Amino acid sequence: MSRLVMKFGGTSVADLERIRRVGRLVAAEVATGKSVAVVVSAMSGKTNELVAWTDGAGRAAAGLPESDDEYDAVVASGEQVTAGLLAMTLRNMGLNARSFLGWQVPILTDDAHGRARIEDIPPANLEACFEAGQIAVIAGFQGVTAGGRITTLGRGGSDTSAVAIAAAVKGACDIYTDVDGVYTTDPRIEKKARRLARISYEEMLEMASLGAKVLQTRSVEMAMAHRVPVRVLSSFVEPGEAPGQGTIVCDEEEIMEKRIVSGVAYSRDEAKITLLGLPDHPGVSSQIFGRLADANVNVDMIVQSRARSADTANMEFTVGKRDAQRAVEIVQAAQSEIGFEAVAVDEDVSKVSVIGVGMRSHAGVAQSMFQALAEKNINIQVISTSEIKISVLIDAAYTELAVRALHAVYGLDQL
Amino acid sequence: MSRLVMKFGGTSVADLERIRRVGRLVAAEVATGKSVAVVVSAMSGKTNELVAWTDGAGRAAAGLPESDDEYDAVVASGEQVTAGLLAMTLRNMGLNARSFLGWQVPILTDDAHGRARIEDIPPANLEACFEAGQIAVIAGFQGVTAGGRITTLGRGGSDTSAVAIAAAVKGACDIYTDVDGVYTTDPRIEKKARRLARISYEEMLEMASLGAKVLQTRSVEMAMAHRVPVRVLSSFVEPGEAPGQGTIVCDEEEIMEKRIVSGVAYSRDEAKITLLGLPDHPGVSSQIFGRLADANVNVDMIVQSRARSADTANMEFTVGKRDAQRAVEIVQAAQSEIGFEAVAVDEDVSKVSVIGVGMRSHAGVAQSMFQALAEKNINIQVISTSEIKISVLIDAAYTELAVRALHAVYGLDQL
Repeated sequence: MSRLVMKFGGTSVADLERIRRVGRLVAAEVATGKSVAVVVSAMSGKTNELVAWTDGAGRAAAGLPESDDEYDAVVASGEQVTAGLLAMTLRNMGLNARSFLGWQVPILTDDAHGRARIEDIPPANLEACFEAGQIAVIAGFQGVTAGGRITTLGRGGSDTSAVAIAAAVKGACDIYTDVDGVYTTDPRIEKKARRLARISYEEMLEMASLGAKVLQTRSVEMAMAHRVPVRVLSSFVEPGEAPGQGTIVCDEEEIMEKRIVSGVAYSRDEAKITLLGLPDHPGVSSQIFGRLADANVNVDMIVQSRARSADTANMEFTVGKRDAQRAVEIVQAAQSEIGFEAVAVDEDVSKVSVIGVGMRSHAGVAQSMFQALAEKNINIQVISTSEIKISVLIDAAYTELAVRALHAVYGLDQL
Repeated sequence: MSRLVMKFGGTSVADLERIRRVGRLVAAEVATGKSVAVVVSAMSGKTNELVAWTDGAGRAAAGLPESDDEYDAVVASGEQVTAGLLAMTLRNMGLNARSFLGWQVPILTDDAHGRARIEDIPPANLEACFEAGQIAVIAGFQGVTAGGRITTLGRGGSDTSAVAIAAAVKGACDIYTDVDGVYTTDPRIEKKARRLARISYEEMLEMASLGAKVLQTRSVEMAMAHRVPVRVLSSFVEPGEAPGQGTIVCDEEEIMEKRIVSGVAYSRDEAKITLLGLPDHPGVSSQIFGRLADANVNVDMIVQSRARSADTANMEFTVGKRDAQRAVEIVQAAQSEIGFEAVAVDEDVSKVSVIGVGMRSHAGVAQSMFQALAEKNINIQVISTSEIKISVLIDAAYTELAVRALHAVYGLDQL
């Protein structure tokens, strides 16, 4: 029998009425004869409430990283509540269902509390559930260490839970969210944005990394690694009334009509750090980025340029906004050792990216991008590219303008 | 090293400021060199919120008793939150602490979801915790079945958790609550009520069963069975500032000064059911009460009297108010079989009781009670007695009057 993992985020289970709607969507899939597991997030707002309490209880205080295990114990309670409520709701509809918490599945993780990684999901308990004709309602976002302590998977972890469970039981994964699929760009910025019927894992991964919030990066990585067929759907539709097709995330080979560019993504979560007057000799970069890596600061774009004075260089790099202050402090603490003249931080930037597997075989994509931005008088501060994407860092004020210009230049409004 | 289990109820952990106060009380005990386990309830109000959600999700719907396992999964999350928050708070104070959920201790229970009974608490994990100099912060009210499903212990279950854990680790148990001990009667009714320095297990058990809400009946039963020394204390006192002595619940032999009557309890949770015109032959009682027992309706007081017609009898008995309607329906469904003429229910009654181990050796206690009530023109509807208590059912309107009269007649205001 075919197996389906359905995942519902916080807004889809925000109250009892919405949980009942989720129940009807689950019932419709069960009626087609599938074995179904459902992964749920906490009711929207609940996780924030719990996190605020843990901050109030001193988790945020300096020097208490070990409190992250207790943070996880507290925060994981949100998904526990929704899982139980949905299992009850399904029973009330005459269906056979039971809830599973992370430790009951079990979803085994490492012990990196607050951002744990899934190591293994032994499928025996879920298999037994399916064989008994029972719907497994699973608390997302959480797991358990080998030592029996509760962990959470970090931001967007429920998507990752769902894909990992689909991989474990060799099923497909439907991610229900508050939008009806993956769009060529953010429809709030460009009304002409179009829903993509299909998108490749690689493109989706770039889209997720580059700011499209519809799927969490790690979940796409996992889907790609295990070739889990993922579909993104809206939960705000009653079963039966034009459910919509959503977007299928799949292998590139399964997409008939190739596009050069599939989407335009943007992120305002970046900050640019500039180091002026660096000594221009080998080992400087590794001194800087080694320190940042040790402190778990992710660095994204990097550009080095020769300064006017011939024997020094300038370096620009971007980090997440929330890490910016910490990154500056780390660099400053090593100023005499590294030997730069000054450091500056600019949080008023955004990163705009175009993504498409077609870039591999088509030249000129970058040129079209730079030209379109130049025509709008948008200055490019930093550029970074991969095989299937080009990202530019620009003044944040030009974000919407840039997104619309790029959406038009690649014909994405005419899909 | 001596071991202490400290238990804090919902009002004692109602917000972060109160949790910090609990932290200070715990720190003060740890500073005396004791190994400490702390048992916490959910923040006050949280359990009710969770229960309301489960009702909304269809738990209350007829014919879904099996949803009680999901009810437990949902409701147990409340204590999980408080346990994590207190563990963090203690760490923030520089103490070594970690949280335990029911399944982590483990607190093994039967599978009577919503009202599970503790079967065993293997002490190894807690012992290891004590040996590592760590404070164990344990989520009360919850356990786990042999099959790995979460259970809850029912109303007041955290007291039971605390006493059971004290029994398992061979320690004493301090129950912190919003009053500073056990009183001769409810101080809201009788301002002259006095705190008892000591009370025997047997008396406390009757007090709890008969309406005094300071300790939960099952926890007293368990303390008595395992001879766990229990103390009732107020958590609304800062450590150091006259903490108060509370009330010690202990063996009768440890109480030097014996009183005839230790306290006056009352309960408004009773309903009286009257069956008129019962056939007066053997087996009628077992027909009635067998049916009620099968439906899990607890019957308390029972009186049978001959009716005016010589070959029929009337029967009066009391059940909990929330069971009254169900009890009437059960009896009515069997009316033709049992053969009574009519059934009536009166919810406007209350039960007032006097309790004291001294009754065993002193005659005349009942006589003083009946006389004191008669002097106030209070009509006694039903009487029931045990070795150490006398209870009467009266018109609910006379409750306060009766409590004050009895408190005075046994000299309880002059302890």
